[in-house]
Amino acid sequence: MSRAYNFSAGPATLPEAVLRQAQEEMLDFRGAGASIVELSHRGPEFIRVAAEAEADLRRLIGIPDDYAVLFTAGGATTAQALIPLNFAAPGQVADYVVTGHWGKTALKQAAPYVTIHLAANTEADGFRDAPAPATWSLSQDAAFVHYTANETIHGVEYRDVPDVGDVPLVADFSSSIASEPLDVSRFGVIYAGAQKNLGPVGISVVIVRRDLLARTGQPRADIFNYASNLAADSMLNTPPSWNWYLLGLTVKWMLAEGGVEEFARRNARKAELLYATIDQSGGFYRNEVAIAARSRMNVPFFLHDASLDAPFLSEARDAGLISLKGHRVLGGMRASLYNAMPEDGVKTLATFMQDFQRRHG
Amino acid sequence: MSRAYNFSAGPATLPEAVLRQAQEEMLDFRGAGASIVELSHRGPEFIRVAAEAEADLRRLIGIPDDYAVLFTAGGATTAQALIPLNFAAPGQVADYVVTGHWGKTALKQAAPYVTIHLAANTEADGFRDAPAPATWSLSQDAAFVHYTANETIHGVEYRDVPDVGDVPLVADFSSSIASEPLDVSRFGVIYAGAQKNLGPVGISVVIVRRDLLARTGQPRADIFNYASNLAADSMLNTPPSWNWYLLGLTVKWMLAEGGVEEFARRNARKAELLYATIDQSGGFYRNEVAIAARSRMNVPFFLHDASLDAPFLSEARDAGLISLKGHRVLGGMRASLYNAMPEDGVKTLATFMQDFQRRHG
Repeated sequence: MSRAYNFSAGPATLPEAVLRQAQEEMLDFRGAGASIVELSHRGPEFIRVAAEAEADLRRLIGIPDDYAVLFTAGGATTAQALIPLNFAAPGQVADYVVTGHWGKTALKQAAPYVTIHLAANTEADGFRDAPAPATWSLSQDAAFVHYTANETIHGVEYRDVPDVGDVPLVADFSSSIASEPLDVSRFGVIYAGAQKNLGPVGISVVIVRRDLLARTGQPRADIFNYASNLAADSMLNTPPSWNWYLLGLTVKWMLAEGGVEEFARRNARKAELLYATIDQSGGFYRNEVAIAARSRMNVPFFLHDASLDAPFLSEARDAGLISLKGHRVLGGMRASLYNAMPEDGVKTLATFMQDFQRRHG
Repeated sequence: MSRAYNFSAGPATLPEAVLRQAQEEMLDFRGAGASIVELSHRGPEFIRVAAEAEADLRRLIGIPDDYAVLFTAGGATTAQALIPLNFAAPGQVADYVVTGHWGKTALKQAAPYVTIHLAANTEADGFRDAPAPATWSLSQDAAFVHYTANETIHGVEYRDVPDVGDVPLVADFSSSIASEPLDVSRFGVIYAGAQKNLGPVGISVVIVRRDLLARTGQPRADIFNYASNLAADSMLNTPPSWNWYLLGLTVKWMLAEGGVEEFARRNARKAELLYATIDQSGGFYRNEVAIAARSRMNVPFFLHDASLDAPFLSEARDAGLISLKGHRVLGGMRASLYNAMPEDGVKTLATFMQDFQRRHG
């Protein structure tokens, strides 16, 4: 098979140009005599790769100088444990808004370290909506308020930044970072696994307002201390350097394509086309999320007859459309439409869905 | 520059055949229509890659069935924090043997969680020896005894497995795993960053005697719980899948080359040649480690006149020999001779060193 349109939720499709460059540089990184995956993270080649990746990411997202950027291993789930360890006193109250699977995971990781206050939780309604921040039940003196900007599995997205007053707002942006312009200054912490909108699996980004790094947090190993990691330029130990390199290539590609403003336009068009295809199918396909809360990044949908799931996936594959199977938590289908998914991919998917409906409707 | 002989201590040289395969498969993994770095870790392609890597690693090292194998992000330093969290009660005594920089790091990560008992520490003598286990001052009822099998920076290695009675022996094997046969059944836990002897940066291996996973350990996030990670086949969250894949390719290569017995022979020849070159230089080069404790994997050495360091590195580079600069902790030079370093590389280095001495001696 040549390259298919890959709708995987993460690890996810990368720009072909990025993969081609990584391929070309695989045996000899720009004359260094070795691959970047073989070179010391303390050497001049990688130091430059790392610094450029940070500078480019700051430009792409618009990260102010009073925010630090950490490049970390361990994924967003590890960040969900480290955030309370670094920014809350033992047992201090923290407010959590849960609108899907990943909000629940955040809660689970934080539970040993803080007193959880559920400011909102839509699980009883099947995680199909994003309750307005004005309805959140915020507590007094919380260490922070945590929410999930985009729920990758349930396809529920907050577009507007919630106003939570002076309490630091902490957000999991794993599946929507860099998908449209964002006012970083509204946040205390933004974290994201890179394997969705920023490139490769195996590295995460944590954007922290610097004043929060002065918080004492809780007793923890030095490797779990964000301030120590920052002081060592995210190289307190050997970082996932190849992954960092691939992230850097992806960010450069996004800048060259026009940055987040351009991706906001493309992502809007892609999502509109796919939701329109679903909504105009007369119930053959359905998405169950409240329209205002529908994710632009991850579109879960169901066929009206689950016995058609297997032929749908099989025929989609034959049409060059892969990784459409829904997450095991929800079942059905899911199409992820990250920055690296070309508009042609979504057009091909929409056409395929209409054709499939004609043949099986 | 074409490919040089790369003596980096980690990230370190990889077999060229492994890099070529990764290069070939970069845009389309075996007909999947996408790169393995783009495919879901829950999909059939990666599940197979992961399972094969574990099976191959078990065969390569000879890991008994009553040992679990975890593939983890975060490096050996994270393991140094997680081991006390998982295997010691809060504040319980743990014995640490410190014979170099990484033993000190292990101590630092564990300090918030256990009462450290220093069973041996050679720092006052500059970390130039490996005190015999019979001289270790072991405490009663320690949760475990931790030592560093090979100190990557100081070039100090324990070859024989220490006898510590019934207390679980925990060992950092980051820089010597799979370099020679090892009786895993003598250990409670063996951990290793992969970026030295097992392949790529960005993934680590933790080999745990299964009965230890029943220990309560300390309050911790689920992502920090080794038993939870094992129950999820090391995919409690998105794993560093590309790194896991490259590790798998490297392990397959090691098996095809003849396994640990063959690498033990090659590694012995490489180390003998380099140490002989140093010892026979009449003091032009020197290694300061006690002969019986000299590492086969990492050979730190110094030129008799530090003003020759810069020309040595520059001329070595011209001769196709890179990454010989010593760690900033020690200065001088260091040559790392992991499994993927060909014998020809060490022969070329030895010849260069003799030639450099003739020209500058």
